[in-house]
Amino acid sequence: MIDTLIEKIKQKNNPTVAGLDPKLDYLPEDMINSAFEKYGETFEGAAAAIFEFNKTLIDSLYDIVPAVKPQAAYYEMYGIEGIKCLKKTIDYARKKDMYVILDAKRGDIGATSEAYATAYLGKTKLGVIDTEAFGADCMTVNPYLGTDGVLPFVKQCGQNKKGIFVLVKTSNKSSGELQDLKAGGRYIYEHVAELVKKWGSDVVGTYGYSCVGAVVGATYPEQAEQLRRLMPRTYFLVPGYGAQGGGAENVKPCFNEDGLGAIVNASRSIMCAYKKNGGTVGEAARAEAIRMRDDILSVLE
Amino acid sequence: MIDTLIEKIKQKNNPTVAGLDPKLDYLPEDMINSAFEKYGETFEGAAAAIFEFNKTLIDSLYDIVPAVKPQAAYYEMYGIEGIKCLKKTIDYARKKDMYVILDAKRGDIGATSEAYATAYLGKTKLGVIDTEAFGADCMTVNPYLGTDGVLPFVKQCGQNKKGIFVLVKTSNKSSGELQDLKAGGRYIYEHVAELVKKWGSDVVGTYGYSCVGAVVGATYPEQAEQLRRLMPRTYFLVPGYGAQGGGAENVKPCFNEDGLGAIVNASRSIMCAYKKNGGTVGEAARAEAIRMRDDILSVLE
Repeated sequence: MIDTLIEKIKQKNNPTVAGLDPKLDYLPEDMINSAFEKYGETFEGAAAAIFEFNKTLIDSLYDIVPAVKPQAAYYEMYGIEGIKCLKKTIDYARKKDMYVILDAKRGDIGATSEAYATAYLGKTKLGVIDTEAFGADCMTVNPYLGTDGVLPFVKQCGQNKKGIFVLVKTSNKSSGELQDLKAGGRYIYEHVAELVKKWGSDVVGTYGYSCVGAVVGATYPEQAEQLRRLMPRTYFLVPGYGAQGGGAENVKPCFNEDGLGAIVNASRSIMCAYKKNGGTVGEAARAEAIRMRDDILSVLE
Repeated sequence: MIDTLIEKIKQKNNPTVAGLDPKLDYLPEDMINSAFEKYGETFEGAAAAIFEFNKTLIDSLYDIVPAVKPQAAYYEMYGIEGIKCLKKTIDYARKKDMYVILDAKRGDIGATSEAYATAYLGKTKLGVIDTEAFGADCMTVNPYLGTDGVLPFVKQCGQNKKGIFVLVKTSNKSSGELQDLKAGGRYIYEHVAELVKKWGSDVVGTYGYSCVGAVVGATYPEQAEQLRRLMPRTYFLVPGYGAQGGGAENVKPCFNEDGLGAIVNASRSIMCAYKKNGGTVGEAARAEAIRMRDDILSVLE
């Protein structure tokens, strides 16, 4: 439910989300070494170190940052142990009352999207009981297969009070190759934006925003401004601030006049703040999260 | 490496792949019951039943069918136990000398695609050793983020002798919403086809086919014919035969004159053949796989 996210953003006066994309390179050496001493240089060792890192970040951020965004790829690359660590991270963040946006960018034909939606936002039927497999609050979804590939996720938004962010205009350099092609006088990302509005029209919360949001990169502020006008009641998940190059002025067009409408992600700049600025992982991450929050709030007055 | 797949197809004279999308509903009741008796109505129980089902299918097919295609969603919905079952299924199929195409449709910004490519096609660095997390031969990839989201997968094709199939024209009903939009006089799926050709141009095998293939649905034979002409040296992974409605005449345009160029998938019609035609899971699956092979070969003369 987008309302839950909005309430957490208001409560903490902070429209940002901390990405948890824990490559082993990002971790302090002593954290890796002590896990490898205990478990050997194994997936189990890597996963233990990564969970320790995530826990440190969450402990340092949960009272000031409303949400975390684990990126599935960085857990899947550590195999089953990595995915166990993803599940533990989701559970731990939710215990700390953070909103969990799983960045998994799933999308398939209808029946298969149903399985993905069940996995991450729903409950899996096992005999007579239904059990959460991963239990995220929200996830990212790829629109390339069209409506029947997205509706199963929307269904979970309605039934199970969850949210999704559909890729509209991504932050990466080559996002324009397909997304900026012009068909019938409109860019592909505009066509996707129209679909996102349609998909989300039946799952609007009490603040007037839909549970079907959009991913709009901070690296393309002009397109963001255009998309903000095109889809005024759609929440934006905004990657590309910080390490990817976008600044506060770049994310400003993603917000509405009400100060809502967008949540800005930073991953590396928070996770690796200790490398740049010194201090412990936790202290440095917290300081950078506060700096980022204040930077963004300063342009929203 | 596409050569490995082509050799297995030639060896078995069978251009088909068996999809392993094991919803619990597809399994015989006694298989589920005996697993639930042993492990309770748990993810562990479901995963044990599903592995038993997959093993039965693989044992009945491995000498006549060159490849399997596990669909990641159906394992992820059973949580960590489901993903353990996916890994066991991949390992078992490879032990039986089948080519494993993981249908995961991943795709993200460059750094994240690198993590996905490492997870499924590469080796993860753990201290001084590199270890396979999942070890598939090949996987499906979503092109919506453009070149920098796809090249990390192509890199694994080159370095690690793997393959990918990029979504070009998918088999589902609403695939046309984005894929059939026309930009600059060409459909989006044609633009993607041009990119696929470009991405694959440096990883061509000894049969003249690239390791970067394309997903082209059997449900759109006209587009398949057009795409066959547009990308003559690209291998097609063809879903939509059987339960989704495509017949042998529909998949014919996906093949080249050399009888190569396409591998046709069927999932439900093979997995659930025992429900329709009677017999054991294994016997019915084998009979249906033979019928499908002969059906397709009959139009390729």
